[in-house]
Amino acid sequence: MAFQAKKLINNPDDVVTEFIEGLVETYPGLQYLDGFPQVKVVLRADVSSATNDKVAVISGGGSGHEPAHAGYVGEGMLTAAICGDVFASPPVDSILAGIRAVTGPMGCLLIVKNYTGDRLNFGLAAEQAKVEGYKVETVIVGDDCALPPPRGIAGRRGLAGTILVHKVAGAAAAAGLPLAKVAAEAKHASELVGTMGVGLTVCTLPGQVTSDRLGPGKIELGLGIHGEPGAAVADLQPVDVVVSHVLNQILSTETNYVPITRGGRVILMVNGLGGTPLMELMIAAGKAVPRLQLEHGLAVDRVYTGTFMTSLDMAGFSISIMRADPPILERLDASTKAPSWPVGVDGVHPPTKIPIPVPPSPSAKGDEPQRRPLQLSEQGQVLEIAIETAANVILDLKDSLNDWDSKVGDGDCGSTMYRGAKAILEDIKNYPLNDAAETVNEIGSTIRRAMGGTSGIIYTIFCKAAYTQLKPSSGSVVTPKQWAEALAASIAAVSKYGGASAGYRTLLDALLPASSVLQEVLTIEIKCWGGSYHCFCSVF
Amino acid sequence: MAFQAKKLINNPDDVVTEFIEGLVETYPGLQYLDGFPQVKVVLRADVSSATNDKVAVISGGGSGHEPAHAGYVGEGMLTAAICGDVFASPPVDSILAGIRAVTGPMGCLLIVKNYTGDRLNFGLAAEQAKVEGYKVETVIVGDDCALPPPRGIAGRRGLAGTILVHKVAGAAAAAGLPLAKVAAEAKHASELVGTMGVGLTVCTLPGQVTSDRLGPGKIELGLGIHGEPGAAVADLQPVDVVVSHVLNQILSTETNYVPITRGGRVILMVNGLGGTPLMELMIAAGKAVPRLQLEHGLAVDRVYTGTFMTSLDMAGFSISIMRADPPILERLDASTKAPSWPVGVDGVHPPTKIPIPVPPSPSAKGDEPQRRPLQLSEQGQVLEIAIETAANVILDLKDSLNDWDSKVGDGDCGSTMYRGAKAILEDIKNYPLNDAAETVNEIGSTIRRAMGGTSGIIYTIFCKAAYTQLKPSSGSVVTPKQWAEALAASIAAVSKYGGASAGYRTLLDALLPASSVLQEVLTIEIKCWGGSYHCFCSVF
Repeated sequence: MAFQAKKLINNPDDVVTEFIEGLVETYPGLQYLDGFPQVKVVLRADVSSATNDKVAVISGGGSGHEPAHAGYVGEGMLTAAICGDVFASPPVDSILAGIRAVTGPMGCLLIVKNYTGDRLNFGLAAEQAKVEGYKVETVIVGDDCALPPPRGIAGRRGLAGTILVHKVAGAAAAAGLPLAKVAAEAKHASELVGTMGVGLTVCTLPGQVTSDRLGPGKIELGLGIHGEPGAAVADLQPVDVVVSHVLNQILSTETNYVPITRGGRVILMVNGLGGTPLMELMIAAGKAVPRLQLEHGLAVDRVYTGTFMTSLDMAGFSISIMRADPPILERLDASTKAPSWPVGVDGVHPPTKIPIPVPPSPSAKGDEPQRRPLQLSEQGQVLEIAIETAANVILDLKDSLNDWDSKVGDGDCGSTMYRGAKAILEDIKNYPLNDAAETVNEIGSTIRRAMGGTSGIIYTIFCKAAYTQLKPSSGSVVTPKQWAEALAASIAAVSKYGGASAGYRTLLDALLPASSVLQEVLTIEIKCWGGSYHCFCSVF
Repeated sequence: MAFQAKKLINNPDDVVTEFIEGLVETYPGLQYLDGFPQVKVVLRADVSSATNDKVAVISGGGSGHEPAHAGYVGEGMLTAAICGDVFASPPVDSILAGIRAVTGPMGCLLIVKNYTGDRLNFGLAAEQAKVEGYKVETVIVGDDCALPPPRGIAGRRGLAGTILVHKVAGAAAAAGLPLAKVAAEAKHASELVGTMGVGLTVCTLPGQVTSDRLGPGKIELGLGIHGEPGAAVADLQPVDVVVSHVLNQILSTETNYVPITRGGRVILMVNGLGGTPLMELMIAAGKAVPRLQLEHGLAVDRVYTGTFMTSLDMAGFSISIMRADPPILERLDASTKAPSWPVGVDGVHPPTKIPIPVPPSPSAKGDEPQRRPLQLSEQGQVLEIAIETAANVILDLKDSLNDWDSKVGDGDCGSTMYRGAKAILEDIKNYPLNDAAETVNEIGSTIRRAMGGTSGIIYTIFCKAAYTQLKPSSGSVVTPKQWAEALAASIAAVSKYGGASAGYRTLLDALLPASSVLQEVLTIEIKCWGGSYHCFCSVF
């Protein structure tokens, strides 16, 4: 059964004008011409025909390819974008309005994707603008590499490579070049780039039913950006295989579409078609780079990965490869205020990975592993007895704790605690018992290794927080007050990271009263060594 | 029947490491720690613990939320991002490795989304790092506004509002503030932001089967970012209605989650969940702004629209609203090199729309409409006869042309040409026939109005290009050489915009020989007025 596609829209007829409204709310550098619904032109807010002393760079075409083209309007890239309805070329009057709005004495360059409707509408607008006295040049981009070289009137389709042409032209115009030179750079750039697309799903027009053309487990290779069928249907394969196929197709010496040869330098663009998450695009980019390097013998100077020219909600991607001539790189790296042009892409690549820092030695005090002192101090003896007593109590409580836990949880509390206590009894022979702070830290490490799970982490946090508190006294006898402060710090840490407070039915409901009692006892100045380590041991 | 979801991946277990590989290939400012598959840490390439004299800002959590968090690593935002497996908290050792790699004497701030796993793992790493002598602070973000205030241990989930907290903290750290102040700013920011999500589809884990939990025509309100069910299921409605509901929920005075009151100023973030195209996000943003202004009495200082924190391939969006205190705005506007932070968002909004420029008057020569001269010159008389003769021939050819066209096309060529010729015969009474250039221009205008379709545009382009060529001679007698040049210019324009050449079976196959013959005749210097306008008329 066919259902209308789920989209976040209102009236399907309003998607383009409402998109433009949201766009200019988002980006204060953009404005639009007040001619909805016919005229849908986005332009730089800081430019007008009266003041523009640079060549205006104008592009556009059918909508449904967002952020293309309106997202590329900004200083250093497009001066205006002419938006048609979804997948429909904009009318001549709309293009003319855009030309008139931003073109100054330096003239304008129209960058047009190679579709008949766009060619003719932009073409007539160009001729009409010339009649009105404007200097106009037009560059047509057809970067598709999916189909064999055309023999008739149909040319190669304009795809995501067009965005790179926008950038080159926009940077050339921003540099103050005259129209003929801006046009020549754009034309040259358009001849250096090739693109091929892969679709996992078919796009759905607003308000329409989703097509089931592409069955489960199938992908389309070499598709356009208007939901038109691809050159071939294939089984879904690992993206590595798909990327390899696409790169071979673009760089094919048979079609000879792009003038790129072994030993050369290239720019890579991995473009999402609208419904593909960035994770998948990055995976494709990460696979494409080594393939270009190792299999095609090419150096990769820049990688643009993102969602640049879409086909509504289509899942899939296109790959564009452009020859990285130094003047082209300079134009691509030039700064721009166009909001959808990627940032942070230029610069020299450092090594992609660096070694993991070596953790400090187990003891904060030295390089030696912790070990039991040859002779225990008085505190050391008390600590050993306390730890062993507490651990043995826990061993005995195993079944009873499991029983109680099975009434409210998964019944493994006793077993988990048993594992921790058992490990402590094994490790205690290496604890530096004369140093209480370090011993608490070692207990934490034992628990972390042995217990696992949420409770393991919580008890480890408890011990680590106590250690941080006790550490300044490391090596000397810990006073009851210091034990009490350590307990309070431990409780605070468990509460903070565990997200629980008193009354949440967690271990805090036992720890908090213990801490209170300890504080009370201390304030009435009954020094009680035993009290403090009982409190401490109540953790186990 | 259930099918495995179509994704551009290789081994589902490798999606996170392969994502990171692609990320660092794309952005030379990023590196990762050499600890795959356990340690998945992305860090600034320009920072090391040995040289870092600022507070390090570290975030992370489960993967599947790209570009969060690794895309926000860069000067002025995060110093490192710790990536877990998909929807799984990163292990403690991985977090510790990240802390050690970037933290200098100023310490580090951990920004953690409010999920138990993240709290505990980041918490233990924080405590362990303190043990190792690092200064560490932790801020936990829970910006979800979908559920009623929690009564137990479960808190509000961390959603896209976390990105704004990253930015505030990163800018504060870049400004050189000490750890306590950076942490305080981050905590304050986390208390000013509320978020709610809406899902159109359920996300699918790599290698898993897509769930059919959410039926056709249904959406989920108040969902998290891990595919967990939302607070409610509702019928799909226009996005305007959905946006209104979400805003009311976030700004509810009942839950009182965000300290925003009527008359205040806010920041709006519209965030795509992974499978939603920018067009739809912009439509939502365009609707949210006036609702905030008019219904909630709030000024909107910034709008961030894009894909910031996703839930794999889920279609849907979240809206975040943050109180726009001036110090917060300053932090959000501060420059950053983090590649996924939006650009071009700050600055004063000009009027969103500007008037369409007025087209120049019909005649380039003056403000008067074109009109037939009271008395025709010799050239005017010849031109009138030529135009009328050609037009009448076309009228007679209607059926024959339709007949021929029906063999190769849709059989309307004769009718379309008839419409054009008929209109020319009507309009000729107003043509300025003594001025050949202007007359050719007027013929183009008549055709454009009357003929429509592809052929109408092509013939109009033909006339406009001829006019531009003839214009310098406007008012004087046009020489045969000028007519020939005009014909050549027209043919060039039609070829350029139409994309056809000789032999493509288009009108060029008649025009090109005509032009050649004309050139030939002219070079043997037989001046022949008649020849030139016959050639011109062969267009019709």
